Order: sequence, then C-alpha cells, then structure tokens
Amino acid sequence: MEPNDEEPNYDYVTKIMTEFQQHLIERANHHLGYPGNHDCSRYMALSPLLQFNLNNAGDAFKESDHGLHSKKFERGVLDWFAQLWEIERDEYWGYVTSGGTEGNLHGLLLGRELLPNGILYTSKESHYSIFQIAKMYRMDCEIIATLASGEMDCSDLRDKLLINKNRSAIINVIVGTSFKGALDDVDLVIQTVEDCGFSENRFYIHCDAAISGLIVPFLSQVPKKYTFKKPIGSLSISGHKFLGCPMPCGVQITRKRYIGTLSKSIEYIATLDTTISGSRNGHSPIFLWYVLNIKGHKGLQQDVEKCIKNARYLKYCLEEAGISSMLNEMSICVVFERPPDQDFIHHWQLQYFKNMAHVVVMPHVTVEMLDNFLHDFIWKRKIWYRCGKLQPPCLAEDIGVSNCVCLVHGKKKEPLYHINA
Amino acid sequence: MEPNDEEPNYDYVTKIMTEFQQHLIERANHHLGYPGNHDCSRYMALSPLLQFNLNNAGDAFKESDHGLHSKKFERGVLDWFAQLWEIERDEYWGYVTSGGTEGNLHGLLLGRELLPNGILYTSKESHYSIFQIAKMYRMDCEIIATLASGEMDCSDLRDKLLINKNRSAIINVIVGTSFKGALDDVDLVIQTVEDCGFSENRFYIHCDAAISGLIVPFLSQVPKKYTFKKPIGSLSISGHKFLGCPMPCGVQITRKRYIGTLSKSIEYIATLDTTISGSRNGHSPIFLWYVLNIKGHKGLQQDVEKCIKNARYLKYCLEEAGISSMLNEMSICVVFERPPDQDFIHHWQLQYFKNMAHVVVMPHVTVEMLDNFLHDFIWKRKIWYRCGKLQPPCLAEDIGVSNCVCLVHGKKKEPLYHINA
Repeated sequence: MEPNDEEPNYDYVTKIMTEFQQHLIERANHHLGYPGNHDCSRYMALSPLLQFNLNNAGDAFKESDHGLHSKKFERGVLDWFAQLWEIERDEYWGYVTSGGTEGNLHGLLLGRELLPNGILYTSKESHYSIFQIAKMYRMDCEIIATLASGEMDCSDLRDKLLINKNRSAIINVIVGTSFKGALDDVDLVIQTVEDCGFSENRFYIHCDAAISGLIVPFLSQVPKKYTFKKPIGSLSISGHKFLGCPMPCGVQITRKRYIGTLSKSIEYIATLDTTISGSRNGHSPIFLWYVLNIKGHKGLQQDVEKCIKNARYLKYCLEEAGISSMLNEMSICVVFERPPDQDFIHHWQLQYFKNMAHVVVMPHVTVEMLDNFLHDFIWKRKIWYRCGKLQPPCLAEDIGVSNCVCLVHGKKKEPLYHINA
Repeated sequence: MEPNDEEPNYDYVTKIMTEFQQHLIERANHHLGYPGNHDCSRYMALSPLLQFNLNNAGDAFKESDHGLHSKKFERGVLDWFAQLWEIERDEYWGYVTSGGTEGNLHGLLLGRELLPNGILYTSKESHYSIFQIAKMYRMDCEIIATLASGEMDCSDLRDKLLINKNRSAIINVIVGTSFKGALDDVDLVIQTVEDCGFSENRFYIHCDAAISGLIVPFLSQVPKKYTFKKPIGSLSISGHKFLGCPMPCGVQITRKRYIGTLSKSIEYIATLDTTISGSRNGHSPIFLWYVLNIKGHKGLQQDVEKCIKNARYLKYCLEEAGISSMLNEMSICVVFERPPDQDFIHHWQLQYFKNMAHVVVMPHVTVEMLDNFLHDFIWKRKIWYRCGKLQPPCLAEDIGVSNCVCLVHGKKKEPLYHINA
C-alpha cells in the first residue's frame, strides 16, 4: 500500500480510511488477549489538538523557548502519579514516556549508572524488553526462576545474590507479569537482598508496573505494596494499557537525587535532557491528563473492580466447563489451555505461550463479550476434541497441578471414593 | 495543574482545553527556531482514528494476532522510503520509530552488534543524543572536528582513524546538523575510511538524516548523495520535522541482512522483535502515509523549493541589514548573531548556541512571518546597540570570518580604497 506519487487522490484516501475504520471496529469487538483498553471513544473530544505539532522535547520540568508543547499537562500528570506512589513533589523526577519499554530503558539505565558494575536480576517471566535492554546496556543478567503463579522465586534470587555478593544488584521487580499478571513480592525481594548483606547503596530496584501499575493501587482491600516509602529507585507504568490512551505512552517516576548521575555523565555536551527519546509526544500527556480528570480515583477504582469481577467470572465459567485455568489474586489475566485452532486464536486475538493462552480483562471487555467468547470456545472444543485423537493440553507445568484438569490431572482431583468405588 | 480527583468537571476541562488551543495558535504563528513544520491542519481529517487504541508492537513485517494496528500503512510508508533511498524491497528492513533519536538508537545498536569492539566516530556538531547513546551503549567515542560550515572535518577523521586502526569504525554521518543544517560529505567519509585501510566488513555507517533527510532528495540540482547504493548501513529521518506529523515519529531503514545480528542476540527469549520500543504508535504511520499521499513527490519538491527560497530571502535581508549570518548551500537553517534579549528569543522561539541563533525555514514559515521577524529584529537591534555599550557579537569563530560583520571583521571587508582614501 505504497503511497501514490501522482496528484493527490482524496477519494482513494477516504475510501481506504473508511474501510480501515470498519475493520478496526470489528477487531476491537473481539479484542481479548492483549493488555490494551479499547474503551477510548472519549479521546475524540481532543481531536482539535491534531492540528498542532506538539513536542515535549527534553526535561518536563525545564521550560524551553519552544512554545508548542504540553509540559504543563505533563507535570500535572506526573504530580498525580507521584502522589499515587507516595513520593513528595520536591523529591521526585519523571516524565511521560513513549510506553512501558522506555520506562524500563530509563529505570535500568539509572540503576546501571548508579551501580556501574551491578548485575541485573530479573525473573524468567519478565517482558522480553528487559533482556533486550540488558544486552543493549552490556549488563550481566541473572535470570531468576518463578513460582507457578508467575511470581519471582525469592529463594532462587537469594542463591544467585549470594553467588555474586561482591557485585551490586539491580533488580527488576514486576508489577503484573506479561502473561499471568503476577506480582513480584517487593517486600520479600527487599528482605532477601538485605538478608544477603546488601546495604542500600549496593542495590537498586526498578519496578516494571506496565500491566498492573494502575490496578494494584485501586484494590481497596490491598495494603500499599509498591511505594517510594520503600527503598525502590524507579517505577514505570503504561498509559495505553489500563487507561486506554489511543497511542502507546507511559509514566516514569524516580527519585530526583538520582537524576544528577545521568546529567553529570553527559555534562560535556551541556544538556540537561536525561530522557531517553529527546523529542517526545506532546499529545499523550494531554490524553493522560484528560482521562485522569474525567475518571478520577473513583472512576479508576470502579474500572478496576469491574475488571477484577469480570476476570473472576471468566475464570469461574472456564472451571465450570472443565477447562484448565488460572487467575492470580490481584490480576485481570485469565490463563487457560491454548486452543489448537489458529483461526480461533486470531478471531479472539488471544495471546499464547507454550500450552497456555490468556484473556486480559480490560475495561472494554464486557460480560457479553466474555459470554460470546465462552460460547464459541466451549462449542469449538467439542469439535476439536470430538474424536479423541487430540486431547486438551496438560497445563500442570505451566500453571501448577492444582489448576490443571487435563486427562491425567483432572482425574486425580476426583474424590477418593470414586476411585475406590 | 494536577488532575482533579473529584467528580468529572467537563466545564473545567473544556475551559482549559480552549485556552490551551488559543495559546498554541499564537505560539505557532511565532515559531521560527525549531525544526518542526507546523503546517499540520490537514491531519484533522484523521481525527476519527483517535477513538482507536492502535499499537504496532514488534516487527512491521510480522503479522500478529493483535488486530488493532496499522502495519499495512507502515509497510507502505517504509516501501516509499526504501525507494527514495534506493534499496530493493526484499533487501531492506525498517520501521516507523518514535522520532529521530530512536532511529539513531537502532542504527548505532546495529553498528555495535555487527562490530562489537568498534569505536564510534561522530562530529562535534552531532545531536546530543548521539553522545548519550555512546554512553548508554558503553561505546568508545571519538569526537571529530568540524569545518566552519558545520560539516565533519574529514582530515581530523583520518587522523583519528589512523590512531585506532586496530579497531573497527562505526561512523555517524549527519545529513543536516542540528544547528547549521550542514551535510557531512558521505563520499568523502567513505573514501577516508577506505584510504585508511578499513575494508567494508570493518566499518559501519549510520546516517542521521533527522533534519535534512526529506530535503536533500528533493533538490533537483543535487546528485543522489545519500543512498544505499553506497556502503551505508542505516539511515533514519524524523517525521515531525519537515513532514509536520503532529507527534514525534520517524523512519529507520537498514539492510535486511543486518537484522539477523539483533534477532540472534536475543534468540533465547524467542522473540523476533528487533525494534527499540516494543509497543509502537499505530497512528503515526497513518499520518505519514496520509501526508505522502496528499503531497507526493511533487508536493514535497514544491515545499523544499519554497523553503530554500525563503531561507535565501531571510539570509539576503539579514546581510542587507548588516547582520552577521550564514546559510549552507542545501540548508534551510539560517544562522545569525544571537540577540541579547531573552524576551525576543522567547517570542520568536529562536534556538541559540554560543554567539549564534538560528531560524529553521520550515514549510509553515511564510514570507510574511519572516518580514515581521526581520522588522522586529532590526528595530530592536537599534535599541539594544543604541548607546554603544553593547556591541553585536563577533561570529568569526562560529560561522567563519567571511560571514562575520562585527565591528572588527565587518570593517575589514570594506574595499581597500576606503581605507586609503
């Protein structure tokens, strides 16, 4: 679909755009497996902004002579997040990024510049970008095992820290793993690292909260787990995931006193820009500001409660239908057996890994969508597994024996008297 | 301007947005010193797309089950650029980036992975992000001197290459320096590196064409300077600069055969995503596709010709008014003496460095805007330099003696008989 180089043909362009929009509407109605919120028609109210080329280049807190930016909105958003993560206004630094990966790029760079010889510790269920970043930054990386929940196995962390006691530790703590939505236990991580004899100036913790960073703080029954009152160095979230900004963006928050390390290291070019991208999207801070204003804490809490409830509903229905499945306590990622039919996966836009598939119950996912999906899934399973040649996969290794109802493990769960009968 | 956490207050939000829009209109009318094109009202036609959360995550050429993306548009845009830079469709790889810096991040990473022990050579007038990237990637960096034009001094490059003959060379060639719009001479760079005894598998050239990548190819009188027919490895441009996309974006093009180096290095995580960002803006490829369709080669050529003509007009008027100034042959960056008045700089949104300021004559800059600026500048200069205490700065060191008309160098240029008279 290479652009046409003759005279402008507005009819052609309009036709293409109209068809594309129809296609997107259909796809949004069947979008279940990826962590994006597609309830974003509200952003149409901001469309007049498309006539401006906005660029928040450089530091959000430094005014520039360049006038076409939205740093006023950006700082508002940052203040809001700083409050959410319990760090004082004059003690934090941050910026609106182009997405979760840029937050990780920034957080891990900070860690490496503060502890140049540090080893990166991250769980094997980390987002792939973490491993890419280790490679980019020429950092040694220790991959930590996980529990069946997807959470970092802190006994493995302990073993690996002890082997490398002579080098500082940069630890990536995941707040919502990509596949199972698991939460690394930041308290246990801190305790482990301290138990291994690392003083606070010999470890750095970055929290990758791309998936659950806007879910966990709104679970009323949960104590504040992730907060700058604990010795963490940086925390990043995504803005296009739970908040549903129409384009990838995110927020990175760190301690102001760390930023000097980055500025100093580039002082010979006399710039105070310590962001990764340089030129930065000036629209996304406005989208973020807008949605935070429209929703507020109350609206976000309602979204979180709805999603958690719907995720539990989906998990319950899968269980009832005899399908291996798993849902972590504070997660909206429902994991289940991977369907053997690529068309089905494509239709419902499921993500899969090994024997698992998952649905991420984002705010745009209604009970009706889930019912349609369940109906389709249960009906198609009868066809896939009809003649007995193909069996539903065993998920014992992936999600634990207790969640698996495959032919082998499902039977074991039947009450004992059935076997003795 | 922290978001309000009470009930949504639509009136408040509307008021803020209306005021902000008025502010942006005023700022766009006085935007002269930054390399962004603010002629972008046409993008309003695409506003229905704001109701979709689009994400081009991963490789532009790999289809995913995630349905809300614009990779079809992205590939169209990439094909267009591949043709512009003379590389066959089956020989290139690329993607739409979040801006020029991401292109540089990708190009230099490719260079480093292909030549892990290579030294980065880049001129002292490089964009600051190049030095930041060297630091991020833990690469040794040799800074090369520049000529008065701003172009890389290839005799200095030669000296530094010869000192480091035992290590491979990764060379950043600038197609339009940030301040003077100078073009590094890629032919002379290649000749120099070859003369120094570097075979093709021991050097890698990345072209940072953020500023002039969409200008040089449309100068009808200029031979194709920057093309993949020469031994260059990658080339990146910005989409929000000359093309005026409303949000930062860019295009990165490289040779397909190089990409294996990046994928291989991360094979243990079984991902084929070799982009820097992971999640990527799905709107910007559509903006790019749209503007390329609406303008075509012909429209872009008209834009380039208009900007070059207007830049020459500004340079001529400054010269006539006895103001030190400089304009490179194929550039739209008019460099002149730095005004001593911060309010003036802020009003016209000028960029400055040392004793210089510049105007970047982008497509939104009309002759009327330039006349208003000139009138204001010439009138204010009379006030600034009225009593003789303050003198216009000497720019001999910055832009060369021949372009300087300060009290010392200006006099020297008067014909000899005046002195003898």
